[in-house]
Amino acid sequence: MNDVSNSVVFPQGNKMPEPFNKYFIGQAYLDMLVSGDKEFNCPIGNVTFEPGCRNNWHKHPGGQILLVTGGRGWYQEEGKPARELKSGDVVKIPANVKHWHGAAKDSWFVHLSVETNSQAGPAEWLEPVADDVYNKLK
Amino acid sequence: MNDVSNSVVFPQGNKMPEPFNKYFIGQAYLDMLVSGDKEFNCPIGNVTFEPGCRNNWHKHPGGQILLVTGGRGWYQEEGKPARELKSGDVVKIPANVKHWHGAAKDSWFVHLSVETNSQAGPAEWLEPVADDVYNKLK
Repeated sequence: MNDVSNSVVFPQGNKMPEPFNKYFIGQAYLDMLVSGDKEFNCPIGNVTFEPGCRNNWHKHPGGQILLVTGGRGWYQEEGKPARELKSGDVVKIPANVKHWHGAAKDSWFVHLSVETNSQAGPAEWLEPVADDVYNKLK
Repeated sequence: MNDVSNSVVFPQGNKMPEPFNKYFIGQAYLDMLVSGDKEFNCPIGNVTFEPGCRNNWHKHPGGQILLVTGGRGWYQEEGKPARELKSGDVVKIPANVKHWHGAAKDSWFVHLSVETNSQAGPAEWLEPVADDVYNKLK
């Protein structure tokens, strides 16, 4: 197993706090590098997913950028095939596009989450990714 | 010498293009991960400084966040002592605060630059950091 859970640039932080943890299958970890204040309008968190962990489908009203720093994972927009992600990849998620992201079944996965235009409001959390959708990803 | 110029997460990119290159002493490299569009209002670049390279004093009207991914360098705000930076460090630069950043004399230095609230306008570039200010940093 590709274990990068403690070998990346930014701290792993603590177990994903509520109310967010309930929108993840499996355990994720969060270290908030920049808080969601009105000065920068750009909260940045370092998110670490254990193997098999992924978040629910969701939307960001101001968009989101993912900067992958370690491991192997997936990003999928509704109606499109999943995209495999590895260290150095960048994902630009337009506002209000329904999507999910998370680790591969056999690898930890680490990305920075940059919430752009955060003054537009918080994420809208939706249903979990169905097991048959996730389990067919290699 | 601590050479991390090719050992970091995001690409080194090309030599800093003009008009920006003239605001650096020494050679810096830039890979734009997210362009400065009106969709995200959050251009993100990976900036690599060769040893001894630093940018001029400057200000960002919407603020800036630095996420350090490798090497050793410095950040200084006008009227304050310089802060040493290493991998994993985060710098939150408020709007319109005069500052500079760059590598240590004996190390490459790599950071992500996140330009927050970029709709506020481009950076204002000012005078170079005086040699006697830079040279006394260890």
